[in-house]
Amino acid sequence: MLDIIMDRRSIRKFTPEKVTEQQVEQLLQAAVMAPSAQNRQPWHFIVCDDKTLFQQFQQIHPYSKMLDEAPLLIVVCGDTQQQAGPQFYLEDCAAATENILLAAHALGLGACWLGLPPDSERQAQVQQLFRMPEHIKPFCGIALGVPAQQPSRPERKLDGLVHKNIW
Amino acid sequence: MLDIIMDRRSIRKFTPEKVTEQQVEQLLQAAVMAPSAQNRQPWHFIVCDDKTLFQQFQQIHPYSKMLDEAPLLIVVCGDTQQQAGPQFYLEDCAAATENILLAAHALGLGACWLGLPPDSERQAQVQQLFRMPEHIKPFCGIALGVPAQQPSRPERKLDGLVHKNIW
Repeated sequence: MLDIIMDRRSIRKFTPEKVTEQQVEQLLQAAVMAPSAQNRQPWHFIVCDDKTLFQQFQQIHPYSKMLDEAPLLIVVCGDTQQQAGPQFYLEDCAAATENILLAAHALGLGACWLGLPPDSERQAQVQQLFRMPEHIKPFCGIALGVPAQQPSRPERKLDGLVHKNIW
Repeated sequence: MLDIIMDRRSIRKFTPEKVTEQQVEQLLQAAVMAPSAQNRQPWHFIVCDDKTLFQQFQQIHPYSKMLDEAPLLIVVCGDTQQQAGPQFYLEDCAAATENILLAAHALGLGACWLGLPPDSERQAQVQQLFRMPEHIKPFCGIALGVPAQQPSRPERKLDGLVHKNIW
């Protein structure tokens, strides 16, 4: 398990192989097991394999070139009526997203988190593209597929980041 | 790995056994392997086992009774000078926090995420308690220890949460 966390990397190159429905189900089951503030579970998921929507998403999101190859896009959405407090969906949806990324790696898939800055024009455009109601905010896109690259584990040091009892 | 994600639960009862230094190192190594916007890694960690600080934290945070028993508190902090954009530390630190929770479960430990609402009075008080600089924001506390309870896996259905291509 720790190896899954340590070896997960953002994947931006994919084979043409599809993500199966069973895999999608497993990814989303992992997502909804994330913790959330007051256990409100303020999330929804758009599962998208429509290449026209991919192209429209790419016109909005400048760092989504990997959707040229990726067979699947999951848009994680926050429900602002369901969340425990203002902006809480950001934390809850981030935990759910990390679960999807880790589950994808565990299933032999690759994934890349495509952030949507909160309250940005980019977020509003994605909300409109997928015809979400006003109270549903797209949190991020996740490009998914079978990896065609295997990035190595980077070294990340803890030096200077850890403080004992007091800053 | 999927079982680790599916079976992780918030733990609020702990044995007196300590978390070892090696376990803390593994938890933090898992944390810093989380993805972050523009790979900015805008996080710091306070590793706290000072019971006086626990009590002061409890006076600030109303849902932290489990710190009566928990031997360790990790405070995950966001670096607002290092983050990729306004409030981005929330998403990055949430992913790092989820990695700590999953790694804890994988190591046989238990953990509970103690949220600190962004820009709240509660957050400011925790910032002050641990003497963090102005640009460092406490994101959450994580109570950690050896579990003295084994909550069962809840059923979480996907019905109504998944949308195909368009909302």
